Amino acid sequence: MSAANKTIAIDAMGGDHGVNSTVPGAALALKKSPDLKFIFFGDETAVTPLLTQHPELKAASTVHHTDKFIKSGEKPSSALRASKGSSMRLAIEAVQEGRADAVVSAGNTGALMAVAKIVLKMLPGIHRPAIASVFPTMDTDTIILDLGANVLVEAENLVQFAVLGSVFAKAHKGVDKPSVGLLNVGTEETKGPEHVKKAGAILSKIEFPGRYKGFVEGTDLTNGSVDVVVSDGYAGNIALKTAEGVGKVTGHYFKKFITGDPLSILGGILAFVALKRFKHKVDPRIYNGGVFLGLGGLCVKSHGGCDALAFSSAVNLAAELANHGYIERVARDINHLMEQESFLSIESY
Amino acid sequence: MSAANKTIAIDAMGGDHGVNSTVPGAALALKKSPDLKFIFFGDETAVTPLLTQHPELKAASTVHHTDKFIKSGEKPSSALRASKGSSMRLAIEAVQEGRADAVVSAGNTGALMAVAKIVLKMLPGIHRPAIASVFPTMDTDTIILDLGANVLVEAENLVQFAVLGSVFAKAHKGVDKPSVGLLNVGTEETKGPEHVKKAGAILSKIEFPGRYKGFVEGTDLTNGSVDVVVSDGYAGNIALKTAEGVGKVTGHYFKKFITGDPLSILGGILAFVALKRFKHKVDPRIYNGGVFLGLGGLCVKSHGGCDALAFSSAVNLAAELANHGYIERVARDINHLMEQESFLSIESY
Repeated sequence: MSAANKTIAIDAMGGDHGVNSTVPGAALALKKSPDLKFIFFGDETAVTPLLTQHPELKAASTVHHTDKFIKSGEKPSSALRASKGSSMRLAIEAVQEGRADAVVSAGNTGALMAVAKIVLKMLPGIHRPAIASVFPTMDTDTIILDLGANVLVEAENLVQFAVLGSVFAKAHKGVDKPSVGLLNVGTEETKGPEHVKKAGAILSKIEFPGRYKGFVEGTDLTNGSVDVVVSDGYAGNIALKTAEGVGKVTGHYFKKFITGDPLSILGGILAFVALKRFKHKVDPRIYNGGVFLGLGGLCVKSHGGCDALAFSSAVNLAAELANHGYIERVARDINHLMEQESFLSIESY
Repeated sequence: MSAANKTIAIDAMGGDHGVNSTVPGAALALKKSPDLKFIFFGDETAVTPLLTQHPELKAASTVHHTDKFIKSGEKPSSALRASKGSSMRLAIEAVQEGRADAVVSAGNTGALMAVAKIVLKMLPGIHRPAIASVFPTMDTDTIILDLGANVLVEAENLVQFAVLGSVFAKAHKGVDKPSVGLLNVGTEETKGPEHVKKAGAILSKIEFPGRYKGFVEGTDLTNGSVDVVVSDGYAGNIALKTAEGVGKVTGHYFKKFITGDPLSILGGILAFVALKRFKHKVDPRIYNGGVFLGLGGLCVKSHGGCDALAFSSAVNLAAELANHGYIERVARDINHLMEQESFLSIESY
């Protein structure tokens, strides 16, 4: 497949800042990947003036007008019922109909998942989708899933997540056989809840696109010891939000102390460039983008509060996976999983 | 009960540095609480020379000789079988026999829990112990439990953890009705695994020493929104280790960038005092100490790799809970819980 000319469908109206982050965000992403094409779904009178400010983006884009969009506070079930013709649903349908290679939205997570499941459907053999994201670690990146599409799941689901995440890591990190760890409370085989222990036993036996490395702990989310960390959405979501919280409290105290006296302020000014580089390295905006995996098409959720830089990260992630041919590859690998005796023998559906 | 003259039993031989952290650690704790008394359990020929270096500690201490101790790598089951006469077991027995008010050990966690459960027994009505610790948050501290005594538990256990944690928060923070949150993947009542939802429903109805505030998320572990966060040991342990990991990776990058060029190094020197104060605030050694709750006596686990400062934090925590009369208070509050219809009606044991 060709890596060039991938088209990204943009839900222009999603997120707290709507077009003010989605349009300049796409412009930033285009600078990084000049071959990209865009279709913006949303209010033409809001999108077009902003596109005019970014001539290169305008040349690479078409606008599909709709004045209907899903509100951030809406319940997934009612949002789904009323979703026909909305900017979010139209953008997802563009992927389903082959007019776009991926969709990016900063809208309501629950609604996006509900509509994406209905429109894009699950890949054959997959019973649970997962949300995956990239974490900054010591010297590399780690892919983590599930971050909250589900809560507690069965061992079978965790094994499928390992496949979904391994293909993600191949696309994002360019490694051939990504190392995969199962998130648990300790590394000994006897530790942990039943579904995690059972998944570990299956992963040791099956053939899949990654290398199973055993159980990992919370510290392994950020120390780069594995390429992929697999978890149920309960522990995964709590770990993700804990990490966000620690980042925030650290920044809070750091700012408080570094601005506490004149000498420290002067020191902070002298170290300005280093501090800026440090802030950039741990900037959550660079790592923005939760990818819905297990669906029949690529769908990336941007943080609702994203600015243009953060939105561009989500678009870049979508482009990266589209260029890699993620869906075709993962469909083949899931197929291969479903043919293996050691997976089927425990498959309980 | 008198707050003065509490006696702490010290497993002198536990941890990576043994007597080299436990004895100077106790000396540091004594500086903070000059009324404390100590009984050291361990090799007299190793303990006594170090005590001589700390005359005030020596005056407040007795040494109980044993040359038997439990190794850090030993399996809890075999450690338990061979525990008779070991420094760890003797220290725990001192609490059980009323010669000490709390025990502190930096030894093997699994062995400590196994021996403590056998010797101190569970409080009447409690079926699962929990490990609790203090987290530094925005402007205050938050008590978090369970950090890994169990993995997944029943709703009933989570409700009991809320009682155990509330009394801890009263002792540590001096608040009358500590606010309690249940760790979950979102704050809506419909979200999360069954055991968490059920525990939330019970906590809304019962009378207990805290105020139930509903579900909280990973970010609430460090933003100070509640005094107590209750979780099963699966999510709690993963959250704790994730937080440790983020702290480490942040420190790693910060050091890397601040020492990257001469201007930044100079800036770092000028801001030295502020950076030191910052480091102190997020120093895990200050928050060292996992308290085993639900047992018939106070048992505090210090991190195995602790130095003297970290060990002293664990001793201070033990003294704080002993001074508060934690065991007597919590026994009464658990008793009160067990009398309530809305708890008993779901009690499935």
